[in-house]
Amino acid sequence: MDTNEFREAAKAAIDQIADYHESIPSRRVVSDVRPGYLRPLLPASPPLDPEPFADIQADIHSKIMPGITHWASPGFMAFFPCSSSYPAAIAEMWSNAFNGAHFNWICSPAITELETVALDWLAQALGLPGCFLSGGETHGGGVIHGSASEAILTVMVAARDKFLAARTAHLPEGEDREDETWRLRSRLVALGSAGAHSSTKKAAQVLGVRFATVPVSEEHGFAMQGAALAKTLDELAAKGLEPFYLTATLGSTDVCAVDDFPGIVEALSRRAGTPDHVWVHVDAAYAGSALLLDENKPLAKPTSHFHSFNFNPHKWMLTTFDCSAVWVRSRADLITALSIKPPYLRNQFSDSELVTDYRDWQIPLGRRFRSLKLWVVLRAYGVRGLQEHVRRGVVLGEKLEAKIREREDLFTVFTPARFALVTLRVNGGDGEEQINARTEELYEAINAAGQFYLTSTVVNGKFAIRVCTGVAAVREEHVQKLFDLLVEGAEKMVKAQA
Amino acid sequence: MDTNEFREAAKAAIDQIADYHESIPSRRVVSDVRPGYLRPLLPASPPLDPEPFADIQADIHSKIMPGITHWASPGFMAFFPCSSSYPAAIAEMWSNAFNGAHFNWICSPAITELETVALDWLAQALGLPGCFLSGGETHGGGVIHGSASEAILTVMVAARDKFLAARTAHLPEGEDREDETWRLRSRLVALGSAGAHSSTKKAAQVLGVRFATVPVSEEHGFAMQGAALAKTLDELAAKGLEPFYLTATLGSTDVCAVDDFPGIVEALSRRAGTPDHVWVHVDAAYAGSALLLDENKPLAKPTSHFHSFNFNPHKWMLTTFDCSAVWVRSRADLITALSIKPPYLRNQFSDSELVTDYRDWQIPLGRRFRSLKLWVVLRAYGVRGLQEHVRRGVVLGEKLEAKIREREDLFTVFTPARFALVTLRVNGGDGEEQINARTEELYEAINAAGQFYLTSTVVNGKFAIRVCTGVAAVREEHVQKLFDLLVEGAEKMVKAQA
Repeated sequence: MDTNEFREAAKAAIDQIADYHESIPSRRVVSDVRPGYLRPLLPASPPLDPEPFADIQADIHSKIMPGITHWASPGFMAFFPCSSSYPAAIAEMWSNAFNGAHFNWICSPAITELETVALDWLAQALGLPGCFLSGGETHGGGVIHGSASEAILTVMVAARDKFLAARTAHLPEGEDREDETWRLRSRLVALGSAGAHSSTKKAAQVLGVRFATVPVSEEHGFAMQGAALAKTLDELAAKGLEPFYLTATLGSTDVCAVDDFPGIVEALSRRAGTPDHVWVHVDAAYAGSALLLDENKPLAKPTSHFHSFNFNPHKWMLTTFDCSAVWVRSRADLITALSIKPPYLRNQFSDSELVTDYRDWQIPLGRRFRSLKLWVVLRAYGVRGLQEHVRRGVVLGEKLEAKIREREDLFTVFTPARFALVTLRVNGGDGEEQINARTEELYEAINAAGQFYLTSTVVNGKFAIRVCTGVAAVREEHVQKLFDLLVEGAEKMVKAQA
Repeated sequence: MDTNEFREAAKAAIDQIADYHESIPSRRVVSDVRPGYLRPLLPASPPLDPEPFADIQADIHSKIMPGITHWASPGFMAFFPCSSSYPAAIAEMWSNAFNGAHFNWICSPAITELETVALDWLAQALGLPGCFLSGGETHGGGVIHGSASEAILTVMVAARDKFLAARTAHLPEGEDREDETWRLRSRLVALGSAGAHSSTKKAAQVLGVRFATVPVSEEHGFAMQGAALAKTLDELAAKGLEPFYLTATLGSTDVCAVDDFPGIVEALSRRAGTPDHVWVHVDAAYAGSALLLDENKPLAKPTSHFHSFNFNPHKWMLTTFDCSAVWVRSRADLITALSIKPPYLRNQFSDSELVTDYRDWQIPLGRRFRSLKLWVVLRAYGVRGLQEHVRRGVVLGEKLEAKIREREDLFTVFTPARFALVTLRVNGGDGEEQINARTEELYEAINAAGQFYLTSTVVNGKFAIRVCTGVAAVREEHVQKLFDLLVEGAEKMVKAQA
C-alpha cells in the first residue's frame, strides 16, 4: 500500500467507522455468536500472497463485526464503561503515526515530556494533593500504564522493596541483612478490602507474597473502615506476619464503595514514620473521573497521606483504552525498585526534573505514545466539558435510583446511586434465597433480550443487579426503557407466583 | 465533536499523517530539542472550556512534531526497528473503534478468537514447533502481550510456580510444604546469558528472585554455549541455589547472537523429567521475524524442547507497537500461576479449546484488540511480502558488511551481518583502548550530523558501533551514504594522527 492508496483506504475506513458509530444504538449490545464461531470462517494458515485491502475491510464487517460487543452502546450498562471519543480516536491515529518503542527520552522527547505535563494537568483537574505533581516537594509525579493491574503490581514492588530496605537498614550489609531480608519476604502480606478489585490479589500472587482481606459490611456500604483494618493488622501481627501494602479503594467494582480514608490514616498512624510503614495505594480506576466534579474533590484530600493513586481515563473519561494514570508521592521509590541501571547513573538522569526515564516507572521497557490522547481529550472537551459528561452519568444514576424507590413493592435499592452506579434487588417474600433467585432471574431475562447489557454481583452472599449509567451515549430515555423492562419482568414474576 | 465533524477532522488528519510519512526522509532523524522544551510551550493547567480541534491539530505540528524522533526514517539504524505500516495503521483505527476492556470472551468474542487464530497463523509462518499451536497435543497456544518484558515476567511467574509445586509435591499439604516452599523461594535463580536482554534481570528483580549470568565469549560470537551453561549450573548447585528459569536468546540486543539451543538442551537434559526442570524461554523479540525466511527455520526446531517463545511483530514485522507474541507449550502452566478464579471454574472455561480467558495468560485484566493489526498485516503483505521486506534488511546488512571488509585498513567487522545487524569498530594502532576511543568518536560524529541514528554497544569491554538495516524505508543508497560517512570520518582520524 503506497501513500496515495493509504489516503484513500484510510478515508474510506473513517467513513465506515463513522457509519459504525452511528449504527451502534440500533445494534444488539452483546455479540450473540457461539464460542468458536470465527475459526471456520478463516483459512487455516496465512495467505502466501498479498490480499486486496478491500477484501480485508469487507471481512472486518462480515466476520469480525458480528463478534463485537458494543461498549459504546446506550444499552451498555454492564461492568464499568470503557469509553472512547472522536478526539481520542484522532489522537490515536497520530500516536500510531509517531510509532516507536519510546523507552527513553531521546527516543522521542515529546513523548516523555507530554506525559509529565498531561499528568500534571490531570492531577490538577482531579484536585489531587500537590505531592503527586511532578514539581512537588516530595518529587512525585505521574506515569501512564496500560491498566490498573499493572499499576498495582508496579507499586507493590516498590512498596515491598522500600519496606524490606527500611526493616533491614540497621543490619550491616552482607549475610545478616540478606538472611533477614529472606525471612521478612516469607512473612510479607499485601492487604485489600473484601471489595478491592481482584488485581491486588493477583499482584500478590505474581510477587509470591501473602494476601489478606479486610472484611467489609453492608452497614458501612461495603467500604473498608479504619477499625476493621486495625483489627486485621493486629491479627496479622499476632501471627508474626508483616503487612507492607494496602489497596484503598475509591469506587469499588461491586458497588462503588469508597473506603474510609481518614479511618485508614488513623489505623496506620502508629506505624507512620517507622520502618513498619505500610504503603497505601488508592485504586480509583473507575471513579477517579468523578473527582472532576467539585463536590467530590474533598474525597481526594486524605490521599496526601498515601503513597500512590491510580485512575483510568480510559474508563469514564472518554480516553480510548489503554490509559491508566498512576501518580506516586516519591518517584525515587519506583526507580529504586525498577531501575536496572547502575546506581551512578540514577542521579544523573532518572531523578532529574528534565529527563524522565519512564521505563524505570513501569514493568515494560517500550512505551506507546499514550499521553497524546489524554492531552487531546482534556483540550477538546475542556474540564467543563468532561464535568458535564461525568455529571450526566451521575444524574442518570440518581434518576434510576429514584424510579426504583418509587416501586418499593417490587425492588430494593441495594446500594444507592454513586458515581453513576446503582445496585438493586428484586423483592421476595421468603428471605434471602428467594430474593437472590428472583434477582438473578430478572437479570438474566434482561440480558437475554439483548437491548441492555447489565452485570451482577454477589456481596456478602447477596445477589444484586449492577446498573452503570456512565457510558457517554446513555440518556434518560434509555434509563426509562431499562426501568420499564425491570418493572415488566418483576411484575411478571409476581403474577406467576400469585 | 459530532460524527460529521469527526469525518472531516479525521480525514484531514489522514492527509496530514500521509504528508508526514512522505516528509520523513527529508527530516532530521533524531529530535534536537533540549530537555524540558515542551512545558514552557503549554499552559500550566488544562483549559476549562473546549478548544477548537483545528488548534489542537496545529499544536501537534508546531509543538509535538519537533520532539519526535522518526523511527520510520531511512536514516534510523539505531536499536532495532519498531515498524509500522499503512495496513497496520488502518487496522488500529478499527481496533480503536471497537474500543472496550475485552477482559473475557463475551466482552467481544471476535477479539479473543482472532487472537488465537492469528497467533496460530504466525506460528506457522515462523515454522514454530507444533507444541506452540493452540490445537497441539501439549495444549499450548499464543497470546499477545504489550512487550517482551511483560512476556518474560509472565512466563517467569509460571516457571516459578511450576518449579515450586513440583519440588514440594512429595510433602503433605500444610505447614511442611509451606516451609519448604519458602525455603526454596529464597534459593531460586533465574538465568540468562551476558547477552540476554536486561528484561530478564528486571523480571527477577520484580519477583524478588536471584539472577545469574552465563558468560559468553567473542570466540563463540557472544552466544551462550551449553558448556558455559552447565558450568554455571554446577556453580549454583554448589552454593545450594535452585535454577528454575532460563532466557535463551535468538538474536541478542548487542550483536544478534543466537544461543546454542542444542547445547542448552544437552546441558539441561540431566534435569529433564525431574522436579528440577528449568523452564526455558526463547527471547526472539527482534529476530523472530527472520524465521519468516526458509533458510532460518531450522533455528526454531530445537525450541520444541523449550517452554515458551516470544517475538515482537512490532519490531521488524511492520505491525504497529505494541504487539508482542508469546507462545507457551502448556497454557495450563500460565493459568495455574495467573488465574485468580476458583479451581472449579478453571476447567470449565479457561482450559477450553473454545473460550479462552486471555486475562489468565497475562498480568493485566483489560486488553486492547491487538490481533487485528497482526491479522491485517499478515493478509495485506502475505507471507511472501513479509519475507521480501525482511530479506531486504538482511541483504542490506550483508552489503554493508562487504563494504566494511573492503576497507580493512580503516575498520574491523566486530560481528558479521546477521538479521540485518552489523557491528564494527574503527582500527587503531595502540590496542583496545584506542580502538574504543576512535570507534566512540566516529559513532558520536555520525549521530551529531543528524542524517543517521546509530547506537553503540560495549561487549566484554569492546566498544562497537551497531548498524541495523531493518527499517522498511532503508535502501542501498542509504547504506552507501552511511558507509561514505563512516569512511570519511575514519579517514579524517587517520589524517589527524599522521
